[in-house]
Amino acid sequence: MKRTKIVLEDKDIPAKWYNIMADMPNLPKPPLHPGTRKPVGPDDLSTIFPMALIEQEVSQERWITIPDEVLDCYALWRPSPLYRAHRLEKALATPARIYYKYEGVSPAGSHKANTSIPQAYYNKQAGVRRIATETGAGQWGAAISLAGVFFGLEITVYMVRVSYNQKPYRRISMETWGATVHPSPSNLTNAGRAILDKDPDSHGSLGIAISEAVEDAATHKDTNYALGSVLNHVVLHQTVIGLELKKQFEIAGDYPDIVIACCGGGSNLGGLSFPFLYDKIHGKELRVIAVEPDSCPTLTKGQFRYDFGDTAGLTPLLMMYTLGHSFVPPGIHAGGLRYHADSPLVSQLTHDGLIEARSYPQTEVFNSAILFAKTEGIIPAPESSHAIKCAIDEAMRCREEGKEKAIVFNLSGHGYLDLAAYADFLDGKIIDSVYPADKINEALRCLPIID
Amino acid sequence: MKRTKIVLEDKDIPAKWYNIMADMPNLPKPPLHPGTRKPVGPDDLSTIFPMALIEQEVSQERWITIPDEVLDCYALWRPSPLYRAHRLEKALATPARIYYKYEGVSPAGSHKANTSIPQAYYNKQAGVRRIATETGAGQWGAAISLAGVFFGLEITVYMVRVSYNQKPYRRISMETWGATVHPSPSNLTNAGRAILDKDPDSHGSLGIAISEAVEDAATHKDTNYALGSVLNHVVLHQTVIGLELKKQFEIAGDYPDIVIACCGGGSNLGGLSFPFLYDKIHGKELRVIAVEPDSCPTLTKGQFRYDFGDTAGLTPLLMMYTLGHSFVPPGIHAGGLRYHADSPLVSQLTHDGLIEARSYPQTEVFNSAILFAKTEGIIPAPESSHAIKCAIDEAMRCREEGKEKAIVFNLSGHGYLDLAAYADFLDGKIIDSVYPADKINEALRCLPIID
Repeated sequence: MKRTKIVLEDKDIPAKWYNIMADMPNLPKPPLHPGTRKPVGPDDLSTIFPMALIEQEVSQERWITIPDEVLDCYALWRPSPLYRAHRLEKALATPARIYYKYEGVSPAGSHKANTSIPQAYYNKQAGVRRIATETGAGQWGAAISLAGVFFGLEITVYMVRVSYNQKPYRRISMETWGATVHPSPSNLTNAGRAILDKDPDSHGSLGIAISEAVEDAATHKDTNYALGSVLNHVVLHQTVIGLELKKQFEIAGDYPDIVIACCGGGSNLGGLSFPFLYDKIHGKELRVIAVEPDSCPTLTKGQFRYDFGDTAGLTPLLMMYTLGHSFVPPGIHAGGLRYHADSPLVSQLTHDGLIEARSYPQTEVFNSAILFAKTEGIIPAPESSHAIKCAIDEAMRCREEGKEKAIVFNLSGHGYLDLAAYADFLDGKIIDSVYPADKINEALRCLPIID
Repeated sequence: MKRTKIVLEDKDIPAKWYNIMADMPNLPKPPLHPGTRKPVGPDDLSTIFPMALIEQEVSQERWITIPDEVLDCYALWRPSPLYRAHRLEKALATPARIYYKYEGVSPAGSHKANTSIPQAYYNKQAGVRRIATETGAGQWGAAISLAGVFFGLEITVYMVRVSYNQKPYRRISMETWGATVHPSPSNLTNAGRAILDKDPDSHGSLGIAISEAVEDAATHKDTNYALGSVLNHVVLHQTVIGLELKKQFEIAGDYPDIVIACCGGGSNLGGLSFPFLYDKIHGKELRVIAVEPDSCPTLTKGQFRYDFGDTAGLTPLLMMYTLGHSFVPPGIHAGGLRYHADSPLVSQLTHDGLIEARSYPQTEVFNSAILFAKTEGIIPAPESSHAIKCAIDEAMRCREEGKEKAIVFNLSGHGYLDLAAYADFLDGKIIDSVYPADKINEALRCLPIID
């Protein structure tokens, strides 16, 4: 019997998160206040974040201890298994060794719970009663709703209206855990009302929903805001993925030549790859590939400059790859990858050549997803399927070149709540949208010019 | 950090299934031919089953070796984890130790894949090209569709029409794995057409769908039939659950006082409990509880006698607890528990006092499911939630009596494709149906009288 997976025990959950800021060749430029355009200080952020998270956001300590209460929650599904994709390899007739780390085992169905748990914990510690947040496809909304029950926090989710209507199961899961979910734009915030005044039928976007959640948190004393990606502390929490993975590769007696993850806001890619980038920065040879959709090609077609995190311009300006905060990407099924920008850490590392990026059209991604489901069994999330597509491409290249490389990707979530997308694909209803060059150029023209 | 779960490695998957027929105080009476009413022989079954499964059906060997090809597939999710429900215990303030074995980790989402894999394997070995089967809620249909891709078998699923319409996600998952799904009753079989002639709007039932699938298999030379529960070989395959669980309890340094599973056709309950019943038969003190819905109370209100497995009377007559093969239970959300009868093995052991049975109304079951989701995180399948309700009841009794018992239940599947049922419950739309005494009495009156 061939070994199919490597599982670890509760005691093998990492005791510390890895902070890549201790090792980056160039640190990201500081966030700027949206009004003054001066670097933001801890006080600027303390209306919406607890101090523990603000400290993590700016820390340059290499290792940050994970609290016991967080480890106890992590143990509900962590360590996550590492799989060797024997059946996929066979179907591709590749000499490559393909591995995947499976984060869909969390009760929320994706890697997002790795950060929702500590975010809920630190907010509870700080005496916060309620958290307001946004969600697009619903993975983050589900994860923070789950975390809310563990720490007794009330959760309010602004869910992009098109997803609210199209993905009722994700909404119901949040409600089952006790969260309140509003379609965004809503008439509960100034930001939402401003959009609805202009367009009463607005489908919403992640940028709009962020504006609503930030406003909710800023205008309620007992309420904080939480973000599911992009920020440094979020990526930090996700490094449990890569840290476990290194231990699992040790047990397997192998080491990856290529590390692959899909990239929306960047926390999944960062969480998987940063512990390996530590090795790369210290001389080890390996490639890290961020995969994004053709229709929202932030790293591959965007610009590296300051931009807002949200549509209304309420958040600090971050130095990152961006397509412009007013850009609304076409409605693809990988909703979690429809963000106009990217994590400043991932952006800086990409700018410095430590991370490669590529993009794919969604029909090719779905074809890869179906092949994966028919070989490895698991039906993958449309987001994660971008990483599968890239892994397959690299494995086919190994076949052409006769090279026995080790490839690992993060299967960041399952697709069981995305089956309507699979139905559309099987019915031939999914087509590839044309690259929205005009809309991106227009959005980039509207950006603030900052030296 | 408290230990939350006990995971095992690939190499710990049991190498053999446990066959309780080697140890039962009384063997079940033999199946009878539906026409002659004489005991059926292997030849009677060979039109729809491969000989390897027929041999397992009648074998009295205690241990039956699991083929390597099956173990390789099992390794995609097995061994499944054993959890200690620390958070649920705390919420109940019980001195009981509550454990659950989690079978929802299979790509098909439930324990059903434990038998779909070997059934597909043995059929492939026998040169079968296609399998016809039925599904109610869709767990079994998903599991056999998954198994079909691993062994290159074409899968045709007759899905109870009401589920086909209400549970599109389960249907789409089967189609994603490449299966063909027909709503039942269909106009593809005599059995289906006969029902549609009488009632063109028939919602269907599991008994009708079985008739259609059996007819399909019997009338196509290259096609066999497969059943997801009830039969001896199906329950046999499920014993991997209980065998792993015994090993996990050894590691935990504990042993269960009470073993609980929901019971529809009986394979889940049998798979969990038979390895423990071995101990009980050999003098160990423990209780095994089968939990069923009030609206389909086979073990608690049915009769122990010969009945058909399907509505049309095509299957052999089995000696089992039954509510009558013409009984159609009210449309509850735990669709997997809506079968009119029960496994002959489970029935015999219940008759002999080795298994207890109890039933619950579905609103109480959903309340327990929500408590479980809010403590342990996982949203459970409505079927599995019957076991949760029973475990909670027993844990509360431990609190009242001040007893520190060890309770284990099988969380046989996740509820992420059942979220529409949760939405109905949260909206107050789920009510408890009145016990269908008249319909059950009428169905029992129609049964054949066999000495």
